[in-house]
Amino acid sequence: MAYKTAIIRKEHFNAAHRLHNPHWSDEKNREIFGKCNNPNYHGHNYDLEVKVIGFIDEDSGYVMDAKILKNLIRELVVEKFDHKNLNLDTEEFKNVNPTAENIAKVIFELLRGALPDELELKVKLYETERNIVEYPAG
Amino acid sequence: MAYKTAIIRKEHFNAAHRLHNPHWSDEKNREIFGKCNNPNYHGHNYDLEVKVIGFIDEDSGYVMDAKILKNLIRELVVEKFDHKNLNLDTEEFKNVNPTAENIAKVIFELLRGALPDELELKVKLYETERNIVEYPAG
Amino acid sequence: MAYKTAIIRKEHFNAAHRLHNPHWSDEKNREIFGKCNNPNYHGHNYDLEVKVIGFIDEDSGYVMDAKILKNLIRELVVEKFDHKNLNLDTEEFKNVNPTAENIAKVIFELLRGALPDELELKVKLYETERNIVEYPAG
Amino acid sequence: MAYKTAIIRKEHFNAAHRLHNPHWSDEKNREIFGKCNNPNYHGHNYDLEVKVIGFIDEDSGYVMDAKILKNLIRELVVEKFDHKNLNLDTEEFKNVNPTAENIAKVIFELLRGALPDELELKVKLYETERNIVEYPAG
Amino acid sequence: MAYKTAIIRKEHFNAAHRLHNPHWSDEKNREIFGKCNNPNYHGHNYDLEVKVIGFIDEDSGYVMDAKILKNLIRELVVEKFDHKNLNLDTEEFKNVNPTAENIAKVIFELLRGALPDELELKVKLYETERNIVEYPAG
Amino acid sequence: MAYKTAIIRKEHFNAAHRLHNPHWSDEKNREIFGKCNNPNYHGHNYDLEVKVIGFIDEDSGYVMDAKILKNLIRELVVEKFDHKNLNLDTEEFKNVNPTAENIAKVIFELLRGALPDELELKVKLYETERNIVEYPAG
Repeated sequence: MAYKTAIIRKEHFNAAHRLHNPHWSDEKNREIFGKCNNPNYHGHNYDLEVKVIGFIDEDSGYVMDAKILKNLIRELVVEKFDHKNLNLDTEEFKNVNPTAENIAKVIFELLRGALPDELELKVKLYETERNIVEYPAG
Repeated sequence: MAYKTAIIRKEHFNAAHRLHNPHWSDEKNREIFGKCNNPNYHGHNYDLEVKVIGFIDEDSGYVMDAKILKNLIRELVVEKFDHKNLNLDTEEFKNVNPTAENIAKVIFELLRGALPDELELKVKLYETERNIVEYPAG
Repeated sequence: MAYKTAIIRKEHFNAAHRLHNPHWSDEKNREIFGKCNNPNYHGHNYDLEVKVIGFIDEDSGYVMDAKILKNLIRELVVEKFDHKNLNLDTEEFKNVNPTAENIAKVIFELLRGALPDELELKVKLYETERNIVEYPAG
Repeated sequence: MAYKTAIIRKEHFNAAHRLHNPHWSDEKNREIFGKCNNPNYHGHNYDLEVKVIGFIDEDSGYVMDAKILKNLIRELVVEKFDHKNLNLDTEEFKNVNPTAENIAKVIFELLRGALPDELELKVKLYETERNIVEYPAG
Repeated sequence: MAYKTAIIRKEHFNAAHRLHNPHWSDEKNREIFGKCNNPNYHGHNYDLEVKVIGFIDEDSGYVMDAKILKNLIRELVVEKFDHKNLNLDTEEFKNVNPTAENIAKVIFELLRGALPDELELKVKLYETERNIVEYPAG
Repeated sequence: MAYKTAIIRKEHFNAAHRLHNPHWSDEKNREIFGKCNNPNYHGHNYDLEVKVIGFIDEDSGYVMDAKILKNLIRELVVEKFDHKNLNLDTEEFKNVNPTAENIAKVIFELLRGALPDELELKVKLYETERNIVEYPAG
């Protein structure tokens, strides 16, 4: 018997962002988002772990070639977000508040379509060493 | 479709402890707990990861405000255990052996009541870099 | 009510390996495995996390004694693979391609028989800081 | 005989920045600073290590009280730069290009005046895990 | 021309301690040492880096055999302090306040006599991830 | 007044190696190098820190452009050693025993000629998390 196996690839990108809900007053934005609402932006080194789950292929010994996964992440995620202002420079966060939760969800959706259906996908994003999100949770 | 999302917040505390079961002989305590049974105590830097799982709120983009979670952990856990002797200075381990497993369980119970029922909670505790526990497992 | 609890023990070993499928042509091996197919081998510092899941024993406060788990891992895994050439020096990889996925699976099987049935087992293997596998996934 | 002893305190802050020399053409700025010249800014999690060197005080056993050092760093550095846009929100980088080198130098100067003359000071700044500066070098 | 070369070996130990100067009043001890003065002790995972500096031996390619250095550290330092109460269980801190600075100095002195005179020695001690000392500084 | 400033760039490579002195008997090689003398090789993930020291350039705010340093390291060091058997696949270790000390010295010499004379150079090499060398020491 064999179990499903996961491979995890880590990549990273640096970006500026600002948390802001345009339907809220400035006061409510400051109250909820605090320092993260700074209108001039602040930034992070985002560390990204992409997990792909499936069965080990008998010929290659791989769930999926980690080089192919690395290249997918760099092409679809890192090139889009690295050294960018998420609010101003990206389509994805024009109308979506770039919280760590939403960034992880957007990255999941960018990668999901590029992977075969039989492989499960999970995204873990470190906004700082102490603030981390997983999408989907698990 | 949206999946449940997890946020993880890391905090830490330093404490002394001693593993000891008062219903066992000294000899059995030494046999089972070894160096950890030292009657004069030893200590650790405990690193704590608290994971909260729920759906992303559409207005804030948060599962839960990480600042609120940070403050809950500091108030309910860190202030209670930091720079303390777990066996002598805390109510929680008067009658509970402070193994990593039991410390994680106690922290889970301290936090569980302070969080809304619809949010799942998991605790991961690093006693050292090489000895780690999760409660509940998963 | 009590949940199942996990304990995790980290160990490591250093080894040389080469990815190669003897049923493929040299050309196909180079195409699929790239630099990892180097006939003279390359190597890694493998970091290993072994997770054991069960209920906390009321007398000891342990899921399982971490010292016993450490010794099992060292005896059954580290002594076998540390400072070895996985392809040439080990029985386990004579006919199994030593991808990270397969190494994790082999380690799982080496440890599974040494643990009581009521304890679940999971293996996480870091081939590099950026390439990681879990067996079983989860 | 006793040697001089160093204490090191780690703190961190998150900020947005842009590398830009106003005396250069836009073309030259893009050529030299590449992605770091993005006019909409990008950002980092800056990890900061402050080293203070002196003799151990015989009464306290301290070179300097680490709590006092921590508070100095938080008051003079972290409050000034955390969750800020270094180019727009700070006096220090109005006319100074916020390269990692210059940020380390500015932090050194902010702290130097607050420490007794007999204590040496060194600053180490991690812009990312892979790009680090020390001021003064050594 | 060849330069001097350093080798660094990392080891660790866990211990309880209390900062206290018996020549001071209880009030002054609490004022200076704060939570670290807890009469019931607290504890840390101490990470230790021992650096030995000399010329590379032409025959072995070693400054010093890292296995010999590892064994020296374990025998002279780790066995003495690991899982101990530094104040109660050790000769070295009967009359010396176990601040990180003094622990590093004591470790230096324990190792200095066991190494040939032509090799320089430096000790770096992590009391926590954020509080570190070096003896001698440099 | 301005001090000299250091920039540090981290890169890594994976390689197989074997410690062996051809002028010694097999017995003496096994006695001195132990498991590292395995004739079938073992391997490591080598983490490399290259430090360059000089004055900050007033126009760029750089000691040296970190992108240029990164490319130099990748071209002169990583491409040469990554996924290689150091003993069999490289000119540099045909007649030099690939201890961590000698690998650091060889990397220093590969980079020294490619950097301007006024910049100082130091190399730090992590063979494992616990075994590290610096060349020159400092």
